[in-house]
Amino acid sequence: MTGTLTIAGLGPGSEALVTPEVSAALATASDILGYAPYVARVAPRPGLMLHPSDNREELQRAREALRLAAEGGQVVIVSSGDPGVFAMASAVFEALEQAPQYQDVPIRVLPGITAMLAAAARVGAPLGHDFCAINLSDNLKPWAVIEKRLRLAAEADFSIAMYNPRSASRPEGFGRALAVLKEAGCGERLVIFARAISASDEKIVTVSLDEAAPEMADMRTLVIVGNSQTRRVGRWVYAPRQVR
Amino acid sequence: MTGTLTIAGLGPGSEALVTPEVSAALATASDILGYAPYVARVAPRPGLMLHPSDNREELQRAREALRLAAEGGQVVIVSSGDPGVFAMASAVFEALEQAPQYQDVPIRVLPGITAMLAAAARVGAPLGHDFCAINLSDNLKPWAVIEKRLRLAAEADFSIAMYNPRSASRPEGFGRALAVLKEAGCGERLVIFARAISASDEKIVTVSLDEAAPEMADMRTLVIVGNSQTRRVGRWVYAPRQVR
Repeated sequence: MTGTLTIAGLGPGSEALVTPEVSAALATASDILGYAPYVARVAPRPGLMLHPSDNREELQRAREALRLAAEGGQVVIVSSGDPGVFAMASAVFEALEQAPQYQDVPIRVLPGITAMLAAAARVGAPLGHDFCAINLSDNLKPWAVIEKRLRLAAEADFSIAMYNPRSASRPEGFGRALAVLKEAGCGERLVIFARAISASDEKIVTVSLDEAAPEMADMRTLVIVGNSQTRRVGRWVYAPRQVR
Repeated sequence: MTGTLTIAGLGPGSEALVTPEVSAALATASDILGYAPYVARVAPRPGLMLHPSDNREELQRAREALRLAAEGGQVVIVSSGDPGVFAMASAVFEALEQAPQYQDVPIRVLPGITAMLAAAARVGAPLGHDFCAINLSDNLKPWAVIEKRLRLAAEADFSIAMYNPRSASRPEGFGRALAVLKEAGCGERLVIFARAISASDEKIVTVSLDEAAPEMADMRTLVIVGNSQTRRVGRWVYAPRQVR
């Protein structure tokens, strides 16, 4: 049997948000690789080997997955959300570029519900107008690039989805990001802190940017900053479709 | 029985990309509203009333859905892709703002796989780094706003997902968008034309921006312009995770 490598998105947490395509891939897999908390979402069964790994080992994990698939495995790499948004898909293609001996391994990428879509749906429609998505982690890019993008995004009046706003190893960046947006005149914009979306401990808070504090976010939080038109209606938050 | 209004995303076309949450909502609905081609994706059954409508009638459709739910219906408004991304969710909250008599109608928004995620998965990982999504339709915003956002997005070095690039009533805008990006120095960037993603007539073409022509896109095409680092590996296109 020819080996295959599938890069699959598990969605934000709830089983009800896993696509049938991804469920089918998991059901026929021989090997599952991924960050340990995501691998833990896959039910063990006879004939299935689980390979949980640590957070910072994306490239090594990608190489291992290619190797297992080249040896004939039905290999699935799992990401939370969508694998193509700040997750494992780019790492796999980077690994493939570095290891051309695996160029004939059949690869499929299966999309998933990424955190910003799930968070937006819970609060209304804050991504209903033009928007951008920025990874606030400076592990793989200089902080200056992040600041520049935030300033330009504010000037463009995009709604801004911020992934990975804050972690124990990066406690300072998110506060600086909020400061950059305040300097850019976004103080009155609405900010949504969406933590553990669709999981049992989900928590969502909406405040103005002026009221936002760095400690409102952690590793499991997705932050959406509204555009200048974003507003509330009842308990909902939405971006109007029209701009004059 | 209390009426409810569910705003659901059907994904880009394939049944394998419809979430279980959305399938469950469709299975218990009394009324389905939406643009005719999306309503046509829902199987008829006894007790289910289908209300297809025309493309430009979003606000009227939203009001009708609120009214049916207020009268006790289990009402589902369907969008293609994700309902929160350039689709029906914003229109419903706009209608709710204008019709406060419906403020007690229970509303749920169910996310879906939006076109850019499905398209990105098919070609690799072109959204693996920071990106933005811009609706190129100028029905609800001035064209000058679109041009300004494209220029700022190029300066920020975002990958750019363009929704609704071109239609019969707007034949000119997309060519201007390509010209703006060329002027901004993006001529060598890769551009992905993803048409009818996940449907039987799916077609994907990747060229450089300099080679891109307006007629490569139509109403069913999602266009992704890579960032300055986006590159090919074998048949795949991806945005590297690292920026120096």
